[in-house]
Amino acid sequence: MDVVYINPFVRSIKRVFETMVKVKVRVGKPITRHDAYASADVSGIVGFSGDAVGTVVLSFPKEVACQVASQFAGTEIDEDHPDFADAVGELANMVAGSAKTDFEGMNVSISLPSVIIGKDHTVSQSKVSPRIVIPCECEFGAIFVEIGMEIKGAAKTAKLAAAGVNR
Amino acid sequence: MDVVYINPFVRSIKRVFETMVKVKVRVGKPITRHDAYASADVSGIVGFSGDAVGTVVLSFPKEVACQVASQFAGTEIDEDHPDFADAVGELANMVAGSAKTDFEGMNVSISLPSVIIGKDHTVSQSKVSPRIVIPCECEFGAIFVEIGMEIKGAAKTAKLAAAGVNR
Repeated sequence: MDVVYINPFVRSIKRVFETMVKVKVRVGKPITRHDAYASADVSGIVGFSGDAVGTVVLSFPKEVACQVASQFAGTEIDEDHPDFADAVGELANMVAGSAKTDFEGMNVSISLPSVIIGKDHTVSQSKVSPRIVIPCECEFGAIFVEIGMEIKGAAKTAKLAAAGVNR
Repeated sequence: MDVVYINPFVRSIKRVFETMVKVKVRVGKPITRHDAYASADVSGIVGFSGDAVGTVVLSFPKEVACQVASQFAGTEIDEDHPDFADAVGELANMVAGSAKTDFEGMNVSISLPSVIIGKDHTVSQSKVSPRIVIPCECEFGAIFVEIGMEIKGAAKTAKLAAAGVNR
């Protein structure tokens, strides 16, 4: 995955959390990951298709997810609350949708979010390797944004040219 | 979700498992589900976008997933095997892709599969309610196919007309 595609997600996680959850997000150094096996308790997954094909996963430890969801919803909600998954899914959707607006000139559509709840689950994208993990931190704790994405030929060339990347 | 869209998935689960896993699949009566909370140990998730927007989830208890993946791969693989998630993802991808070919006249694209491994996790599609669960059974045990999908206006009218449904 080209690093030029990481920045839209860095901007979008900051923008969405600062606007919608009212917390500042510190973004750490992105890590390339080849295996599937980092675990989380709560994950929101959104698929991309079209000129960019792949997935973005927003993952949290349970306590962080509950605090983020509560602040986003404006009322206390825990993992058993009927609105909990909706809140996490909506945040994942916003992070994906906001990043998508930065992919100028590309025809990309995003799927509806799926939300996984289960202690220490792993999410693997079987066909996209390696993937990029952006480790983030907010006042409630750790947030991970994991991106596995492939850009189709023509769109890739145009986008890299627009970004001033020679190759 | 219109029942007319269930049949492509019923056909595809049978076709994919009989061809690729070499097991017969018995399909039970589809159930409408409004909440998110049935749990599984292994889930393969594929998103749809375009004229049909939504998700299909293929879920298994762990033991069933291991036996299905082993038979599919032609060698014994358990949940810790590096090819396990790939096998489950590929099956979910085939079930979605094969169902998609039955959506004639619709422009639908599917995302890459995500595979979730974690005891008793739940998968919720926050925006699609109700969803349809197709309970299936093969010689290894239970398989569940869960579909949450919305069809866009024009495509819906055309498809329903083609299916001979008046409304």
